[in-house]
Amino acid sequence: MLALAEAAAEALTQLRAATPLVQCLTNEVTTNLVASSLLAVGASPAMAAVPGEAEELVGVAGALLVNLGTPGPDQRACVEPTVAAAAGARTPWVLDPVAVGVLSVRTRLAARLVAASPAVVRGNASEVRALAGRASAGRGVDATDAVDAARDAAVEVARRHGTVVAVSGAVDLVTDGRHEVRLAVGHPWLTLVTGAGCALGGLVAAFAAVTEPLVAAVAASTLVGVAGERAAVGAAGPASFAVALVDHLHTTSPDDLARRVLAAARVQTVQVAA
Amino acid sequence: MLALAEAAAEALTQLRAATPLVQCLTNEVTTNLVASSLLAVGASPAMAAVPGEAEELVGVAGALLVNLGTPGPDQRACVEPTVAAAAGARTPWVLDPVAVGVLSVRTRLAARLVAASPAVVRGNASEVRALAGRASAGRGVDATDAVDAARDAAVEVARRHGTVVAVSGAVDLVTDGRHEVRLAVGHPWLTLVTGAGCALGGLVAAFAAVTEPLVAAVAASTLVGVAGERAAVGAAGPASFAVALVDHLHTTSPDDLARRVLAAARVQTVQVAA
Amino acid sequence: MLALAEAAAEALTQLRAATPLVQCLTNEVTTNLVASSLLAVGASPAMAAVPGEAEELVGVAGALLVNLGTPGPDQRACVEPTVAAAAGARTPWVLDPVAVGVLSVRTRLAARLVAASPAVVRGNASEVRALAGRASAGRGVDATDAVDAARDAAVEVARRHGTVVAVSGAVDLVTDGRHEVRLAVGHPWLTLVTGAGCALGGLVAAFAAVTEPLVAAVAASTLVGVAGERAAVGAAGPASFAVALVDHLHTTSPDDLARRVLAAARVQTVQVAA
Repeated sequence: MLALAEAAAEALTQLRAATPLVQCLTNEVTTNLVASSLLAVGASPAMAAVPGEAEELVGVAGALLVNLGTPGPDQRACVEPTVAAAAGARTPWVLDPVAVGVLSVRTRLAARLVAASPAVVRGNASEVRALAGRASAGRGVDATDAVDAARDAAVEVARRHGTVVAVSGAVDLVTDGRHEVRLAVGHPWLTLVTGAGCALGGLVAAFAAVTEPLVAAVAASTLVGVAGERAAVGAAGPASFAVALVDHLHTTSPDDLARRVLAAARVQTVQVAA
Repeated sequence: MLALAEAAAEALTQLRAATPLVQCLTNEVTTNLVASSLLAVGASPAMAAVPGEAEELVGVAGALLVNLGTPGPDQRACVEPTVAAAAGARTPWVLDPVAVGVLSVRTRLAARLVAASPAVVRGNASEVRALAGRASAGRGVDATDAVDAARDAAVEVARRHGTVVAVSGAVDLVTDGRHEVRLAVGHPWLTLVTGAGCALGGLVAAFAAVTEPLVAAVAASTLVGVAGERAAVGAAGPASFAVALVDHLHTTSPDDLARRVLAAARVQTVQVAA
Repeated sequence: MLALAEAAAEALTQLRAATPLVQCLTNEVTTNLVASSLLAVGASPAMAAVPGEAEELVGVAGALLVNLGTPGPDQRACVEPTVAAAAGARTPWVLDPVAVGVLSVRTRLAARLVAASPAVVRGNASEVRALAGRASAGRGVDATDAVDAARDAAVEVARRHGTVVAVSGAVDLVTDGRHEVRLAVGHPWLTLVTGAGCALGGLVAAFAAVTEPLVAAVAASTLVGVAGERAAVGAAGPASFAVALVDHLHTTSPDDLARRVLAAARVQTVQVAA
């Protein structure tokens, strides 16, 4: 646990020093918050999603985010070549399977993408259940399933595809298939911020540019959670909360992050019934 | 009037309890504010606008918003099938004919859509005049016509297509072709918020998921107006006003809404020259 | 210098009186901030980027912004016909060549567009170097080159294409090929606001609707700079800074602008080695 807290703090320090370029093939609804969150933590966002260009940018990117929230024509055309380019360049990439399981175009796309072994999958419980082929009560971007209901699915996806899976909820769950980390951090108003989950996906990618996937998912989830807790102090509603959230992504220090990981994280070895 | 105020308050209470999913085929410029406003009032926004998916989502949506502000290739391809799916599922839908009358692609599209009888049309005076086939001084998203100049057009569109028409302006006008309601509520800075009108369109859809169209239009228009009045207190400019606007969409109570409807609304029976 | 300061103040006064429509073929990531910034200074933004419509809107627009940040299918199809329509209508237009030099689709597009003589080109040092065909360390939207490193390229582009070139940086540079103006104004947090450069491009277009290109570039650059300086007072991080930035775009007076131009600007006649 201490090791995890120190690794998260070290990753934040490195992120601010390295300012990695994070390429985003992302959701049109939330691009601005994703970009602002990346700038706030010290990364450099680039949203090139044009066929021909997206593959070019991978060459200079430190990490890639693929968010399926609004899979428009250009994104549908360039996401798979871009992921292949990232794999070829050993650039870590993060899959955010927004609303997978409810809508068919992205569900088919996500099934192909997860098989290409992203460094991290970041979703809510319903989306992670869908990636594992399990039924869900999901109706889009809502998480109608609790994180615990996605625990087995998360472990299964992690093991099958050699990826880290981060499930967002009241208590977040992060697993690499061997360990599971639960993070009791955050604030209910995060669910009222358009794109808070998408921003978290972007931050996982930024951290993945400078550290290993499990630490990246824990550091990013905890950073968003602690920024949310701080933002709630003095916010008058969800919009002033969203402004303060990004401010605190910028001002939260590595030491603050380490302390919050230490207090919030519970790590277990995964026990899977044979 | 008391009945209208009580119905608006009851609708807000139901909206927060039911958290209806509001599907949005909407404007790329303002998706984030539309989504944030929907979350603030208790609805659940979903922006799926991909051919194949948009029709699927109608099945789980409580209401549909069609905003023509940026009719890109995917929206042009899927808006009519989605509206047909909504009609088939008896899902109420709202048409926001942004810049209709000035630009030809969306003007033709809007003419076909309004003939499919949306529950509510929400526009400014120039747009509503254009929907009725009347000349306008409009030059896009601006309302260069006063609300009164659109009164006859609004009644005509409402009667011809069996829809409620809500005309936004300094004083809002809502009509179902038999009654006309004028709402003296709001603040001039609402015209400086990018997407305030689009957010109103989304909120009309959210209310239409839980109440009848006339009440939905009155409740949403008054809620945005009173939130704007409250936001103006202490705002330093249009951007801090926009943040406070969304905060107040979240914190304004059903009782506050009822009181403001009672004070702001004037209802008349429509007198139409034969 | 006094003349330049007075011209900038006069332009801001005219802009607020004339409320020109500024048509934007722009970046999907930053449309909202561009639109909000235009509304804040008194202009009227319109984001129509649909083939068929974009050319129509030029007829009623006071100026046109072409920002290549996210050149999607509709933008790729309509940008050149729209620029041709603007040239035919003598509507001033501004080119913002986002990430040109790094990504090939937009680099080819920008090369054709700059040859059509925009009133103003607004970019960072890396982008302006790329427009002049010079190598750069750029990696997208970052300016990895200092403004001084783009001075010769800016003069060259200005002379070759009969345009004004505005290079954004810690000290901004504006040149028409004969004069060069350096503007020591702004705040480092402007680099943490998603779309601050794009908003500046939009504001240059708004000013170009009411004054000559050199004054437009100086007035817009200084207005963003002084609004940033004021926003930094009391901001808790980059997001509250962004909110205050737009507030100050709205509240900064022509006299304040004139005073800041007078203090910040240094004008020289361009000396070019033969």
